[in-house]
Amino acid sequence: MLINSARLYERMARDGLAAVVATAPENVTYSSGYWAMSQWIRRGPQAYVLLPAPGRGDPCIVASTGVVELIADQDVWVDEVYRYGHFVVERAAGVALDACDTKIAALLALPEHADAVAALVQALDDRGLAHGRIGVDELGITPSCWDQLAAARPGLTLVRAAEVFRWARAVKTPEEIARLRASAQLAERSIDAALAVAREGATELDLACAFHSRTIAGGGMPVLGCIGFGTRTAMTNVQPSNRALRRGDVIRFDVGGRYMHYRADIARNAALGEPDARVATYHRAIRAGLDRAHAMIRPGVRAADVFDEVMETVRREGLPHYARSHVGHGIGLDGYDAPNLTPSSKDVFEEGMVLCIETPYYELGFAGLQVEDTLVVTRDGADSFMTTGTALRIV
Amino acid sequence: MLINSARLYERMARDGLAAVVATAPENVTYSSGYWAMSQWIRRGPQAYVLLPAPGRGDPCIVASTGVVELIADQDVWVDEVYRYGHFVVERAAGVALDACDTKIAALLALPEHADAVAALVQALDDRGLAHGRIGVDELGITPSCWDQLAAARPGLTLVRAAEVFRWARAVKTPEEIARLRASAQLAERSIDAALAVAREGATELDLACAFHSRTIAGGGMPVLGCIGFGTRTAMTNVQPSNRALRRGDVIRFDVGGRYMHYRADIARNAALGEPDARVATYHRAIRAGLDRAHAMIRPGVRAADVFDEVMETVRREGLPHYARSHVGHGIGLDGYDAPNLTPSSKDVFEEGMVLCIETPYYELGFAGLQVEDTLVVTRDGADSFMTTGTALRIV
Repeated sequence: MLINSARLYERMARDGLAAVVATAPENVTYSSGYWAMSQWIRRGPQAYVLLPAPGRGDPCIVASTGVVELIADQDVWVDEVYRYGHFVVERAAGVALDACDTKIAALLALPEHADAVAALVQALDDRGLAHGRIGVDELGITPSCWDQLAAARPGLTLVRAAEVFRWARAVKTPEEIARLRASAQLAERSIDAALAVAREGATELDLACAFHSRTIAGGGMPVLGCIGFGTRTAMTNVQPSNRALRRGDVIRFDVGGRYMHYRADIARNAALGEPDARVATYHRAIRAGLDRAHAMIRPGVRAADVFDEVMETVRREGLPHYARSHVGHGIGLDGYDAPNLTPSSKDVFEEGMVLCIETPYYELGFAGLQVEDTLVVTRDGADSFMTTGTALRIV
Repeated sequence: MLINSARLYERMARDGLAAVVATAPENVTYSSGYWAMSQWIRRGPQAYVLLPAPGRGDPCIVASTGVVELIADQDVWVDEVYRYGHFVVERAAGVALDACDTKIAALLALPEHADAVAALVQALDDRGLAHGRIGVDELGITPSCWDQLAAARPGLTLVRAAEVFRWARAVKTPEEIARLRASAQLAERSIDAALAVAREGATELDLACAFHSRTIAGGGMPVLGCIGFGTRTAMTNVQPSNRALRRGDVIRFDVGGRYMHYRADIARNAALGEPDARVATYHRAIRAGLDRAHAMIRPGVRAADVFDEVMETVRREGLPHYARSHVGHGIGLDGYDAPNLTPSSKDVFEEGMVLCIETPYYELGFAGLQVEDTLVVTRDGADSFMTTGTALRIV
């Protein structure tokens, strides 16, 4: 199971919520296991998961009839479904359906609600939740659906709850950790594949093609592919171009796809032949900062303290003017989960948090240098997901 | 240029809007050419384009400092930029910057606003737009940012404007048509690549890997990859699994990536060896329906009339119980642009609309059959983007 129910219920109790409604794709999948395709590839399609507080009723999914069948073919642990909208699927006469198709037939036989909010209202009513304080994740529901819900059940107090989900998601379950580890390691293999085609004259696009193809071959889907050469590496979000690799160029990867819906985000540098001395010095410094983060992170340590220590380390180890707004962030279904490793962060590390720690340095006219690892906070330290080191790789 | 300014301004005038604000990724890219990476790969990051009505000031972009540099490296036609948030990028001393880095340095030298809404408020104020009726695309701005804007400038009347953009986007510009044609044809090549590995024992995932790899090799990014075998093809949104291809199996593709940010969505069927007679009969019927749509579509024709004719054709040509809620939709930056080819649609085709027309048939325990083409409405008819026919391909 993906969801950390105990943590979500704890937060709901603290916030006095009788129920929460997941609406953004990340929160719907997190709360139920249901990957409702249309909401992942577009903005606007509505899918919800209603999660009542313990003792207030069973959770349920609200799904469009056009994508409801995916529930039958996925590892979904929420049993009850409310479907909405008309969509035609026939059924073969005189044929025994297999297990999956039997489930689909049962889903399609459910009552048809007029629209997503009508289905959600029915689900709330069925649980006696027509009054009280309900948290609604405001990032996936459209404003018009929010208004429709408020108008349909004026006895409800609707409060924005995207932050409630974000907070719950910060401490990962074992299944999430396994997926994040696999996702990070697939990104490493994809960097290897890209570097395998890195030779003089190869373009950024050639490396990106090799990178993403390897991600796909490993069962992932491409998402983040910032791959640049030379001074272009100083562009934070450099998008691959026809720029050809030249001797002495730095190569920067800030990359990662999705694996079983979980994001990767790692960074490495390479160079075609020996880079200039300043690159080597600065790169050693940012690596030292990352090593310091690895050594410090454990439950109870403050994110802001890690930020301060990392900055001080990088400055001391060879990059005296190093300045940064953060040195990392959580990762999960979203590429930027809680916590944030910023100077003003109030976050304290807990066992099960999965973090991307990073010490990028961008200098226009020179280069962008960046190392970024992913790790999980363990009972007494941190366990890195990485199987490759952060050293500048000379190709 | 991507934007159909004349059409957008026409709608703004009709709706009495002094300006519109694009906030969803599709609308930001459409309005400015700016692809603000973070908002495309996550929900929550804010990027806006403010488009005043003619004579009310120049358009401008609101961008986070962390992704502002992409403006310099992309074909962006909006000149003025307001950036927000702190992000550190150094500049090499004593080095002449190239053209792109010079632009980046200028963007980073712009005043730093505290947050996205503060930057937008400044942009509105600079144009004398502190009062009046402003359309704000409600699908990309967070509800808290919407509230912050309303509170900061109570003299503004904010109206939801996602539908204004959707309406404007329905009639494509030549650049959009060129990208959509290339995107659709890349999806065709990717189906060819998938069918090249279709042999007994190959899995749905094998075909999906070949499909997406070809999309990437062609400069695209994977999005939609519904590829199934046998009775699994009856699942509308079938996600590739380890199911192995067997003799007699139907194969269904409902697929398409992005090319230069523009979506593809096409569908084809194949079979390993001769399929059963009912498959052949039904497939001929749905193809006849698609052919009827091709023949009818031209400016001035009603979408609802095409729906009715297509349904009647499929029923007459061998699938007498055919039932459907739509037989197509527009496509562009979004996979479902206007118009809708539904029985209740009020849409009338116009020159420049790009349409996905489709006649899918799903029968649990039997198969899913689907043909879907993409075409552009021309002055006196329709021009198909497809280079491959819809016939059932026997592999």
